[in-house]
Amino acid sequence: MAYTLVLLRHGESEWNAKNLFTGWVDVPLSEKGRAEAARGGEFLKEANILPDILFTSMLRRAIMTANLALDSADRHWIPVERHWRLNERHYGALQGKNKKEIRDEYGEDQFMLWRRSFDVAPPAIEAGSEFSQDQDPRYAGEPVPASECLKDVIARLLPYWEERIVPTLRTGKTVMIAAHGNSLRAIVKHLDGISDEDIAGVNIPTGIPLVYELDEETLQPLKKGGTYLDPEAEAKIAAVANQGK
Amino acid sequence: MAYTLVLLRHGESEWNAKNLFTGWVDVPLSEKGRAEAARGGEFLKEANILPDILFTSMLRRAIMTANLALDSADRHWIPVERHWRLNERHYGALQGKNKKEIRDEYGEDQFMLWRRSFDVAPPAIEAGSEFSQDQDPRYAGEPVPASECLKDVIARLLPYWEERIVPTLRTGKTVMIAAHGNSLRAIVKHLDGISDEDIAGVNIPTGIPLVYELDEETLQPLKKGGTYLDPEAEAKIAAVANQGK
Repeated sequence: MAYTLVLLRHGESEWNAKNLFTGWVDVPLSEKGRAEAARGGEFLKEANILPDILFTSMLRRAIMTANLALDSADRHWIPVERHWRLNERHYGALQGKNKKEIRDEYGEDQFMLWRRSFDVAPPAIEAGSEFSQDQDPRYAGEPVPASECLKDVIARLLPYWEERIVPTLRTGKTVMIAAHGNSLRAIVKHLDGISDEDIAGVNIPTGIPLVYELDEETLQPLKKGGTYLDPEAEAKIAAVANQGK
Repeated sequence: MAYTLVLLRHGESEWNAKNLFTGWVDVPLSEKGRAEAARGGEFLKEANILPDILFTSMLRRAIMTANLALDSADRHWIPVERHWRLNERHYGALQGKNKKEIRDEYGEDQFMLWRRSFDVAPPAIEAGSEFSQDQDPRYAGEPVPASECLKDVIARLLPYWEERIVPTLRTGKTVMIAAHGNSLRAIVKHLDGISDEDIAGVNIPTGIPLVYELDEETLQPLKKGGTYLDPEAEAKIAAVANQGK
């Protein structure tokens, strides 16, 4: 016996399609993203891996992806819990900016440092600016970041993992987490014991359920890296790595 | 001060459009229904009545209506709780049958008795039949009905109202319930103190938020019947009353 965890990165958003840094800006899925989400649910149904409970971020691209995927899988009725600790990495002052323009302006090295370094966060976003979330009612009373590196994401995500997700896994329920490139990389890094250096090379494709079977005692993955429910996943991982080029 | 309750009947489903008895059969929204749901959310946003928490049935037409409406209203991130006690009335052996054919076969009097009487349930559905829910995993361990009249709906809904919804209202949160013609009539009957006879004449239009302000002490509506967030609501109520004719 093992516990089952399903990770699902949201489908393409309108800003993925426009090549903008998104972070905590709450943009909708593109039409392609909605189709990816529905297809993700078909993969779950075909594999007969049926979530009993859903965790999502507070952002509509993850929420809508989960809604569409679960509807496809006939699991739209399961309980759901949302938390900002599953949100995407806050991209600070880069939120709303074009990735290519930032790359041209600051150069490839700085661009890759902001995108992929473990502990260098972009410049903080100004409070009250168009793409800041400091006045957003959904985070009222919560410590809204002004910029994050992956290390920051891990630091704010792991308490939620330990307090809410681990105890739910231990009840034997199949848990699905619908979230984002960086919040899911934080979980994968934790589960697979990936080093601070190597996590830079880990990419998670959109809309493809990634299934981990976890040992009942240790919660270690039975298979490192888990299993994607899509034979074409490898090609899609490469596409993510090439983003912004 | 008063508490705010928003009732939202799901938009048109594929079976509403086909004039079939639906009950607990889990059919999707039609395209028109999805548009109604999104528009319902616009009404909420315009009126600045923003739900803090959502309760839904276990059926996708209510779940999807809530998802689309809350997305329109920028409240897709609020907590949600689902329960079968908010489901539509179980239509027994009529589930999956055409309303006009049932009317032609059994006559207007019997048809209206099944549709509108307070305490006459349709014949029970056979266990294991195509449109029965006795094997549906979402109701495992729950007392799935084989047919219900409105009186039955009230009997299974009110415990949930008292145990989950009333305490939530009393925290001061704006509560939205996304549900069905008959489960919402049960709530309206309870709130407005409508008699067993008069409830037959009460119709709730689809996709239009019905807002009740409730006295903080007694939970009695400050305005009987509440307020629809749509100037055209009256015409839509008449359309519901004419259904099946």
